[in-house]
Amino acid sequence: MSAQPVAQAAEARGTFGGDMDKGSGPVTLRMIADEVGVNVSTVSRVINSSDKEARRWASSDMIDRIRTVVAARGYQRNPHAASLRTRRSGLVGVLVPRLQDFVLATVYEGIEEAATEQGISTFVTNSLDRPENQASRTELMLSRRVDGLIFGDAHTGDPFLDTLAKRGIKFTLVSRRSGDHISATCDDIMGGRLVAEHLLATGRRDIGILSGRDYASTGNDRTAGVVQACLEAGIRIRPERIVHGGFDAPGGRQATERLLVQGGCPDAIFATNDFAAIGAMGVLRDRGITVPDDVAIVGYNDTPLAAELSIPLTTIHSPMHEMGRAGLNLLLAMLRGEPVESVRLAPELIVRASTAS
Amino acid sequence: MSAQPVAQAAEARGTFGGDMDKGSGPVTLRMIADEVGVNVSTVSRVINSSDKEARRWASSDMIDRIRTVVAARGYQRNPHAASLRTRRSGLVGVLVPRLQDFVLATVYEGIEEAATEQGISTFVTNSLDRPENQASRTELMLSRRVDGLIFGDAHTGDPFLDTLAKRGIKFTLVSRRSGDHISATCDDIMGGRLVAEHLLATGRRDIGILSGRDYASTGNDRTAGVVQACLEAGIRIRPERIVHGGFDAPGGRQATERLLVQGGCPDAIFATNDFAAIGAMGVLRDRGITVPDDVAIVGYNDTPLAAELSIPLTTIHSPMHEMGRAGLNLLLAMLRGEPVESVRLAPELIVRASTAS
Repeated sequence: MSAQPVAQAAEARGTFGGDMDKGSGPVTLRMIADEVGVNVSTVSRVINSSDKEARRWASSDMIDRIRTVVAARGYQRNPHAASLRTRRSGLVGVLVPRLQDFVLATVYEGIEEAATEQGISTFVTNSLDRPENQASRTELMLSRRVDGLIFGDAHTGDPFLDTLAKRGIKFTLVSRRSGDHISATCDDIMGGRLVAEHLLATGRRDIGILSGRDYASTGNDRTAGVVQACLEAGIRIRPERIVHGGFDAPGGRQATERLLVQGGCPDAIFATNDFAAIGAMGVLRDRGITVPDDVAIVGYNDTPLAAELSIPLTTIHSPMHEMGRAGLNLLLAMLRGEPVESVRLAPELIVRASTAS
Repeated sequence: MSAQPVAQAAEARGTFGGDMDKGSGPVTLRMIADEVGVNVSTVSRVINSSDKEARRWASSDMIDRIRTVVAARGYQRNPHAASLRTRRSGLVGVLVPRLQDFVLATVYEGIEEAATEQGISTFVTNSLDRPENQASRTELMLSRRVDGLIFGDAHTGDPFLDTLAKRGIKFTLVSRRSGDHISATCDDIMGGRLVAEHLLATGRRDIGILSGRDYASTGNDRTAGVVQACLEAGIRIRPERIVHGGFDAPGGRQATERLLVQGGCPDAIFATNDFAAIGAMGVLRDRGITVPDDVAIVGYNDTPLAAELSIPLTTIHSPMHEMGRAGLNLLLAMLRGEPVESVRLAPELIVRASTAS
């Protein structure tokens, strides 16, 4: 568990050192905070700081009031907690859906590179996007005393992350965003807009979208960007043109088969991952549908394969390595108590033969 | 660091408790072992066991001789070491060249799956195949008290692994083998033979090989298998037909460009990795050389992309996930003190359009 949350939890329990109201258990930081009318972290900082340091957290009057109540109520801090508070393991835990996914493996390389530069060790595990694994592996990492966590497998709107935040555990998100949690991602809505503008400019009017997993902001934001840009151009994408599925080649194959069955052949397919695009190209090849004459194809991420394919793949370049570095650096800033804001990296359209008209 | 090696190292230093020969430093287990004429581990086991347990390790006479020498020389064991010896962290460290490589990411998934089933946590890091990283990250993992290590980045003949073995550190190799260290790999020589037999049977006579990194047994064994099978068929592969380089798509591109420059165009190219094969196909596409009519292409590993390419790729199926599981299970058996032998998994030829004649 992160050093600070352990400390705060232990400290919040405190030690009963006075003699008032013995029946109600130990005096807690929460009781002190409520009585003074400030939050728990202010009380914690004041009682654990020198007079001079305490001024950073509260006014002189407030410091006096807090200390008066602490003395009156007989609160004694837990010395074990105090030692924990300053202890850092230098370990950061990272959860990704699968390292098999080139994108996440590259993001992780960025995390590891930035961590190594700062003497931090990282620890990565695959959650396979299964909520039970996310929970159990997070707890496993906390039991290994990581200072904080980086999630590459956030599910949109998942209360799991909210619960972690409430426990005071420090974490950042990479690749996928969720709620207001701090994240380092590509500006995926912008990425989707770039795709749509390019396809519209090259004469395509009926775009099918392999949107990826429905719980991943990456696929959803990229899809939303396409839908928005098309609407602005007066083109409405019908719901049956948006198909969910895995981000890998087999996932792209399956989604494309569903797409073709449920609405006939579009004149363009946007796969929200290069590997899914390769799966889509396999299906079109099997059916004798030519790329780009019959169907234009666009991927996402600009992995090194994209340029080497027999039909080189138009795609969106996403700064994956940089994203990992940013996610780690945001986490370290949070651990230092600095204010942080989410980072959105700029996508870039790379035009190749798969969309040449 | 593995509990046992720490203990043995600390114990080997021992504590000087007698009064003989003060100038020469503490009495060590090694000195006792040399004097009695047994190995260090026997001395360690005898002095750390009850009389009854000690009989498992040595005869009654030998036990008496060891204890007599221990007493005469005034050797005292380090109690800290004794406590370490029985402690297990439940952590296994894994080094791979790059998780970006689908093959190693898949092997790692197998390691992680088998570890999770047995309540073991794994820790993976990228060495980028750089010796300085291999050394520093190994030490980092040892400092995190891993019980043992799994290396996916072994360099053929590298004394680094020998040194670790001499220190008593427990480890296994996956993907690549090296020396006599215990490993779980594909039978890569057999894989190479399967490739050559298929190419010869389909009328190819001039095979170029993208052999990968010259320090990796994977590429070297696959190459050796091709060379052997060709020789047996009366065909000698000239040295300039074997080109080293990275196992990824950019590496395959560069190696293919060198191959074409230095000896003209062969009628088949064997890339020791599917991604390198995709890089090779990109070069041939750029030069208007057709696959398979002008040049047949074979990859290795049967990654999910191979079947989806516009020209589906003939390749060797290698049981990557199973290899990871085997590597972890071998390590756990070693840690339990059981005898273990290296595992060679069977490759399988998958014929697709890239070699159809």
